[in-house]
Amino acid sequence: MAKNTNIRISLPAVCFVWQIAMIILFGVFIRYDEESDTHWIEHRRKKNISTNLENDFYYRYPSFQDVHVMIFVGFGFLMTFLKRYSFGGVGFNFLIAAFGIQWALLMQGWFHHLDENDWKIKIGVENLINADFCVASCLIAYGACLGKVSPVQLMVLTLFGVTLFAVEEYIILELLHAKDAGGSMVIHTFGAYYGLTISWVLYRPLLSQSRHLQGSVYHSDVFAMIGTLFLWMYWPSFNSAIADHGDGQHRAVINTYLALASSVLTTFAISSISQNNGKLDMVHIQNATLAGGVAMGTASEFMITPYGSLIVGFCSGIVSTFGYLFLTPFMEKTLKIQDTCGIHNLHAMPGVIGGIVGAITAASASESVYGQEGLINTFDFKDAVANRTVNIQGGYQAAGLFVAIAFGLVGGALVGGILKLPIWGDPADANCFDDDVYWEVVVISLTCCINKIKNRNCII
Amino acid sequence: MAKNTNIRISLPAVCFVWQIAMIILFGVFIRYDEESDTHWIEHRRKKNISTNLENDFYYRYPSFQDVHVMIFVGFGFLMTFLKRYSFGGVGFNFLIAAFGIQWALLMQGWFHHLDENDWKIKIGVENLINADFCVASCLIAYGACLGKVSPVQLMVLTLFGVTLFAVEEYIILELLHAKDAGGSMVIHTFGAYYGLTISWVLYRPLLSQSRHLQGSVYHSDVFAMIGTLFLWMYWPSFNSAIADHGDGQHRAVINTYLALASSVLTTFAISSISQNNGKLDMVHIQNATLAGGVAMGTASEFMITPYGSLIVGFCSGIVSTFGYLFLTPFMEKTLKIQDTCGIHNLHAMPGVIGGIVGAITAASASESVYGQEGLINTFDFKDAVANRTVNIQGGYQAAGLFVAIAFGLVGGALVGGILKLPIWGDPADANCFDDDVYWEVVVISLTCCINKIKNRNCII
Amino acid sequence: MAKNTNIRISLPAVCFVWQIAMIILFGVFIRYDEESDTHWIEHRRKKNISTNLENDFYYRYPSFQDVHVMIFVGFGFLMTFLKRYSFGGVGFNFLIAAFGIQWALLMQGWFHHLDENDWKIKIGVENLINADFCVASCLIAYGACLGKVSPVQLMVLTLFGVTLFAVEEYIILELLHAKDAGGSMVIHTFGAYYGLTISWVLYRPLLSQSRHLQGSVYHSDVFAMIGTLFLWMYWPSFNSAIADHGDGQHRAVINTYLALASSVLTTFAISSISQNNGKLDMVHIQNATLAGGVAMGTASEFMITPYGSLIVGFCSGIVSTFGYLFLTPFMEKTLKIQDTCGIHNLHAMPGVIGGIVGAITAASASESVYGQEGLINTFDFKDAVANRTVNIQGGYQAAGLFVAIAFGLVGGALVGGILKLPIWGDPADANCFDDDVYWEVVVISLTCCINKIKNRNCII
Repeated sequence: MAKNTNIRISLPAVCFVWQIAMIILFGVFIRYDEESDTHWIEHRRKKNISTNLENDFYYRYPSFQDVHVMIFVGFGFLMTFLKRYSFGGVGFNFLIAAFGIQWALLMQGWFHHLDENDWKIKIGVENLINADFCVASCLIAYGACLGKVSPVQLMVLTLFGVTLFAVEEYIILELLHAKDAGGSMVIHTFGAYYGLTISWVLYRPLLSQSRHLQGSVYHSDVFAMIGTLFLWMYWPSFNSAIADHGDGQHRAVINTYLALASSVLTTFAISSISQNNGKLDMVHIQNATLAGGVAMGTASEFMITPYGSLIVGFCSGIVSTFGYLFLTPFMEKTLKIQDTCGIHNLHAMPGVIGGIVGAITAASASESVYGQEGLINTFDFKDAVANRTVNIQGGYQAAGLFVAIAFGLVGGALVGGILKLPIWGDPADANCFDDDVYWEVVVISLTCCINKIKNRNCII
Repeated sequence: MAKNTNIRISLPAVCFVWQIAMIILFGVFIRYDEESDTHWIEHRRKKNISTNLENDFYYRYPSFQDVHVMIFVGFGFLMTFLKRYSFGGVGFNFLIAAFGIQWALLMQGWFHHLDENDWKIKIGVENLINADFCVASCLIAYGACLGKVSPVQLMVLTLFGVTLFAVEEYIILELLHAKDAGGSMVIHTFGAYYGLTISWVLYRPLLSQSRHLQGSVYHSDVFAMIGTLFLWMYWPSFNSAIADHGDGQHRAVINTYLALASSVLTTFAISSISQNNGKLDMVHIQNATLAGGVAMGTASEFMITPYGSLIVGFCSGIVSTFGYLFLTPFMEKTLKIQDTCGIHNLHAMPGVIGGIVGAITAASASESVYGQEGLINTFDFKDAVANRTVNIQGGYQAAGLFVAIAFGLVGGALVGGILKLPIWGDPADANCFDDDVYWEVVVISLTCCINKIKNRNCII
Repeated sequence: MAKNTNIRISLPAVCFVWQIAMIILFGVFIRYDEESDTHWIEHRRKKNISTNLENDFYYRYPSFQDVHVMIFVGFGFLMTFLKRYSFGGVGFNFLIAAFGIQWALLMQGWFHHLDENDWKIKIGVENLINADFCVASCLIAYGACLGKVSPVQLMVLTLFGVTLFAVEEYIILELLHAKDAGGSMVIHTFGAYYGLTISWVLYRPLLSQSRHLQGSVYHSDVFAMIGTLFLWMYWPSFNSAIADHGDGQHRAVINTYLALASSVLTTFAISSISQNNGKLDMVHIQNATLAGGVAMGTASEFMITPYGSLIVGFCSGIVSTFGYLFLTPFMEKTLKIQDTCGIHNLHAMPGVIGGIVGAITAASASESVYGQEGLINTFDFKDAVANRTVNIQGGYQAAGLFVAIAFGLVGGALVGGILKLPIWGDPADANCFDDDVYWEVVVISLTCCINKIKNRNCII
């Protein structure tokens, strides 16, 4: 019962060791790419590039900043909804994201961007976006464990999560040559099953002892809406950030915008219909409204048509809300999976929908719709896969989905096992969802509290 | 008294019917335009466009995202100021905006973008911006009704509001050929009078029974400042989002930036002078500081000069703050218009100022200031209006203002009549401004509350 | 003791006088530059510019908006952390920033952009960014005085602060030809010493009488995290906003992104190690995580290498957190400097580190790393300084740092003396950190409060 949650040695040790490792590895491996190096001006002349605007920076920087906001404010504030875990929600999200993006630059660099001449990784703005994407999968996993793990565990979860992500991403995008611009499979499906499996391994039979803290208060729900809205608004940037220049980015934005709008309406509908008097539930509004963005991740670049996007959002909003109503309680009771934020409903199911939609849309692509060049550009049918047909592409898309799920399940089981070791300073079942364990929180006794109010009057 | 606020059937029904209608209509009418279609590469070659950057996406996407934030976080959080209606403020704003943008794409498409060859609407990023703009007018109208209507009524208000908007916009921008880049007339004046007239029709004589909830608490005022600041910061993007490429967007940003800065100072001044001891009122700071942006909507593209922009902001800040001090109480008492957010002060009066400023600035434009080409470009004096003089343009601008007011008043009266039907689940006069009516809110009895505090200590 | 805090005459007077002065001065001096003027189309033809995209607007507007968010939401919300000074934190920040940007356009214009043909200042988007930068230094200074000064004093502080800034910036950037894209020296070092010296002059020996309000409550700490995160996320835009087009902006983003990530980890480490049980302190997380961005201000454009950036962030995070732990109490007790927000730890020390890093990085630049053209472009070695060597450049960088410190100290002493006059309506020592002095705050007696709770139940 009386677990040791003292992290005064372990947290600083982990932070220092990993940050110093990052510095050394960056020193050995990471350099500026030709667009962020001072030799850009010579590169321009050599490649006959007429203007500085052709620097990829100007294509992608606005989208990058939107994604960056989603990672830190979006995910961070979405996790402030618990009445006494707002510091942990936004604070630990900050910590692991800041660590994860560094490790992701290395891992993704080794797999995708290693220059074979000098064995260096050359980074530019697209690498920063990809690092943010990679970290998103770990933040999703954090959602399942919110309030039940120590920051040290989260650092371990992120270290392994980023590592697994880079391998899985390499298999799906490079070996299978599946397309997944917004990461329905690579980010959401993987991240969700990774987190759910960890949560299953770390099952806490007596978690009900912390039940009084596992809920929101009025203002913490409003804080969480900040996260929801920034995720919702910037999701078109998320799904288009690394899409093809020109029509690819443009189309990804339109598709995502529409899918999101559609899932808002079905979420409100199902939330209302499920309660007496039709009262809405903030948990649904905070989460299921985003399902359309998740489900549009893979197909965002494709010619799925505007009404196709609406249909995807329509279905995923319904599925996600039903998940919160029925699946989360079922999973906790029967499957012994405690999923604090309901990531199964927001990321796992819509992510799988997104993978399936992507596979179907790819398999039904045609030259009459895409145009000959358009089809080749959209699916990158060149070099090794120059002769791939859309049907085969659909098959590989589906294969990618299975890889993502498999990596999530197996990886989560392994990492969950590591996190179960009694050395990480995690809280007792009765002390979950409580900032007081890891943060200096000002607590005042009731007498003192009432005296305070008496003297200064009461500001509600 | 005991009104039926059960929306368990009506809200889901409205959401589903309208979303399904959207899917069908999008299936029939909406397609990607040539810049978001995979045929873009062929289009580029045909039109001899040298780079992907000339895709309108790169001109407008950053501004679009800023406008998007204004619609969902700006308007949403501005309406969280009430002590117990924060869920309704930000949540219903989310719902109706997500519906409205879909309907706006259709309505505006039919009026402005219908391809006469295949009777399809071709959409790109500019359509998304315009849809956001259109919805803004309905969110303004919501401000007058905040806390007093049901979500079902809001869906109806939005359905008709978007419809009216598209017609009015067509008359003002296409038939009258008035310019209104930031929508002082088209968005703000129309939206405000639409909402005020609805609020007048729905007058609640016993609203004072809810008076104890019609105010803010400390933290709800801080939440509202999030809305204020995101509106304030991104207003330059709002007024420049659909301005002409190049100098048009650039100038619109400068003018709006300056007008906003100026109205902050006059708002603080009038707010301070109006109270004993010069204490500032959060209501003024949250709202009247934005008046400069509203009033600069029409003339933002024009050569109004930087000091002209400062003067516009100066006056509109004063007018708006005086409105909160004197007009809102007067309107409620004498005119029977209950205006929860004071949209008359923030949108109606500054919107009218903006329309007048636009007409005067247009009428006094000259070739010596604009240059010959500049004058033609700024006012689009070509084709049917190639021979229009600036004086006549000024007259048409003024005419546009009257069209906007007329549509607001007549449209609001009609829609108000519809909303008065006793079938929409609106709250009783004694239950206004209360989230408890439409949301699951955790309420705890005082004993329980004190016990909770005793057991867990008190966190203030 | 019973100080007169009535600002009903003084605040409106200052606002009106200064805003009218701005209008007159803008009328005399400020015009659109060739990129925001309707003559842009002729300018394009004359200069043979092929596309509207070459308008500087498209290079810099996304960064400008990010900087704008940092100024108003970033700084504003960072200062909401006090339990009863959130209105003052975000509200006065709003007021002085809105005034300061106008005055900065003039002051910076006179020094940097005065057209010698017609004695006008021609403004475009880069001027708006620079005005925001200039104001940042005054907002930093506000951080030292938070809760202890009146809004009238803040207006005076800003008037002189902007004036001093423009002179100091002119000396450092133009006369010394030092580089400082992100303003480690020009903005942070100057602003911090300016504010600290003012706070030293205004020392309040009995400030402990307000000690019960000089702390945070749970939700005010969450509000402050909004400020922290928006500052943190958009800092890459801050340091790259006025960097060179192309690789300059691109590299500044990468360097800042990495330095910030690194300082998050060391901040968490030191914060944890400093407390019993390793509990984290919100004050550290809210502030010291940003130190990497401050310290990367000068060298952001340079080829400091990615691991160099990590090292800068690593050190500055440690230094800043130690500052909060040891220096702030020491300064208050021994040096009589009361620094509410700890700007010495967040801006002064990391700013000085940034200046030193910049000098060293510049002095060790070489053609083999930068390339011949790259070296000239990065340091602008042309015209009067065409023959400057990197070693000499390093010396001038160091000289710039001393100029910034000197201006801060001397300017702060002078302005502090002015602010000490007993005419500005500042609060008594016992009434500091209290919004009730300058804002209409709803206060309710305890009885009333309990009755309210009884009647309406208690919403926590």
